[in-house]
Amino acid sequence: MIKSAQHLDTFIQNAFIAAGANKQHAAMAAEALVAADLRGVDSHGIARLGGYIRLWQQARLNMRPNIRVEHETPSTALVNGDLGAGLIVAQKAMDIAIDKANNVGTGWVGVKNSNHFGIAGYHAMKALKHDMIGICMTNTSALVAPTFSSERLLGTNPIAVAIPADKEPPFVMDMATTPAANGKLEVCERQNKDIPEGWAQTKNGDPTTDNRALKNGGAMLPLGSDREHGSHKGYCLGAWVDIFSAVLSGANYGPWVPPFVSFLTPPPNPVGDGIGHFIGAMRIDAFRPANEFKTHMDNWIKTFRQSQHIKAQPTVQIPGDQERIIENERLANGISIHPTIVNELNELSRILHIQQL
Amino acid sequence: MIKSAQHLDTFIQNAFIAAGANKQHAAMAAEALVAADLRGVDSHGIARLGGYIRLWQQARLNMRPNIRVEHETPSTALVNGDLGAGLIVAQKAMDIAIDKANNVGTGWVGVKNSNHFGIAGYHAMKALKHDMIGICMTNTSALVAPTFSSERLLGTNPIAVAIPADKEPPFVMDMATTPAANGKLEVCERQNKDIPEGWAQTKNGDPTTDNRALKNGGAMLPLGSDREHGSHKGYCLGAWVDIFSAVLSGANYGPWVPPFVSFLTPPPNPVGDGIGHFIGAMRIDAFRPANEFKTHMDNWIKTFRQSQHIKAQPTVQIPGDQERIIENERLANGISIHPTIVNELNELSRILHIQQL
Repeated sequence: MIKSAQHLDTFIQNAFIAAGANKQHAAMAAEALVAADLRGVDSHGIARLGGYIRLWQQARLNMRPNIRVEHETPSTALVNGDLGAGLIVAQKAMDIAIDKANNVGTGWVGVKNSNHFGIAGYHAMKALKHDMIGICMTNTSALVAPTFSSERLLGTNPIAVAIPADKEPPFVMDMATTPAANGKLEVCERQNKDIPEGWAQTKNGDPTTDNRALKNGGAMLPLGSDREHGSHKGYCLGAWVDIFSAVLSGANYGPWVPPFVSFLTPPPNPVGDGIGHFIGAMRIDAFRPANEFKTHMDNWIKTFRQSQHIKAQPTVQIPGDQERIIENERLANGISIHPTIVNELNELSRILHIQQL
Repeated sequence: MIKSAQHLDTFIQNAFIAAGANKQHAAMAAEALVAADLRGVDSHGIARLGGYIRLWQQARLNMRPNIRVEHETPSTALVNGDLGAGLIVAQKAMDIAIDKANNVGTGWVGVKNSNHFGIAGYHAMKALKHDMIGICMTNTSALVAPTFSSERLLGTNPIAVAIPADKEPPFVMDMATTPAANGKLEVCERQNKDIPEGWAQTKNGDPTTDNRALKNGGAMLPLGSDREHGSHKGYCLGAWVDIFSAVLSGANYGPWVPPFVSFLTPPPNPVGDGIGHFIGAMRIDAFRPANEFKTHMDNWIKTFRQSQHIKAQPTVQIPGDQERIIENERLANGISIHPTIVNELNELSRILHIQQL
């Protein structure tokens, strides 16, 4: 089924409102989810709507959160998300970061007691229109084993950085700190294909090409895949994100991060509140004039994009290129929703008494 | 030859003073270089001293820099390193970041017109004793090809993050954004061994195990090694460091970064001044009470260190463990200097009229 972004947006808003969210929060949540669908990150868009609703049904997500600053300095804040959807909480946190950057050059917000926030890139990009750089990290429930470990201790913990340019589109990196996203293992499983070595390990820590490695008790590997290729660096990155998102804010970290899916119960003896994010905004002109910076960013982008590409390989891309190409195509032609998701959403519409997709 | 850290420190100070540096700068440079030797990063320690002196002889490094703030906000500064040694410039920048963090919670300093700063971890760790998190990045001359490119456009661009704990030693990550450091290729060359696939490519962009790949016009690969294993993420990381270090500060970026070695001439038509760094400090208690945070860091560290390790693999390490173990051993037993380096340093002592090593 192909639907316009606007159509999906309305469906999501109706669902959040039916679950008790106010209009402003519903609109924020819808925009963040549809941004994922538009940018081609189908796993983080409307396909996740049911997940938020099920968490709410279990009282593990608050549809009327009182998102509040618990502590602050001129350049920092600690935000309590009150167990709201991260989709909304992270936007409030970025607004605070932007305010602080306007006042003192940069703003940095630690967030606790939050939940899954969709795609990190969406939140980072909010800074762009203010001539600011946006930064966004979040921890997620543990699927990744540190180098040499057979235990899952880290999430796929993404980092996003959005940097404005002048005539060129912005630089937008948004990357999990693993070789491949979890969803790619599931794609291989549906297609009955082995996964490449270097994505996952068995529950004993042996290399594997089993597309059901995670379901069989194994773990994903950090970016770098093995020690010889720098997996200890991917482990560093995932650990960094975990500590900034959760130890700094007072959220759950490492193996204590509560899962997004409602059929898994949160780990016992939590060490903090909900999951955590770390969100920042830096005013370009706190360092150098914004027009100078953006002219050099255009030059940076053109230099990299026009560099000699390897024969038989695609041209060199700038972080964000691929997602923007997909977004333009989907804005023009609509977003294709998988039949399984359509069925799930229509079941949801019956439960919530809202219009079908 | 085995020498104490103090002995190396004195030798380096004498060399810098003989080249015209003042005592304070000489002491700062010596401490930063010896920190690398102590922590086991031999390639970035006293072995590099000759490199700094040769750049000074070519007037590409200023031994009497007027390191100055050119622009600032309460939480940011733009520092002009006046072509001083990065060893010194980066320390001044971190001092400024720490001051700003004391005042407004965080401090962020863009640095231009600098030079090689030694190991990133040394600078990041300066924040620890203030109960702050230290962050340090630098760009370096281009050796790495972006995903799909056959051109060298990025340096090995390291990221360091130092995070204090309570009873446990601090978390200190300090990583190049490549699978292996350049020095590891040279080790393989000396031992006449192939390098693993996934470290480098030929000048046409083909996979290679040639330990002379770089010398034959090839390039290093970003962390992740190939597209299937996430090299585009390593490319994102290297690009992020390049832009934060140099486009934000007004230094040279991408292929324009001047080389450290004196026998290579800087690229023509520079787009900025010298090389760039990005340095930050965040006060822990700008987010939550420092004692709470540090207690949770202890728990984080113990949880990861004690996790089940894979049979026949070492125990799980915390970023910084390995360097600290080496440092303790070398503080007790001295630092072994390779005969080639001893000869080079003694040649240097004749030129500079200082005492032999």
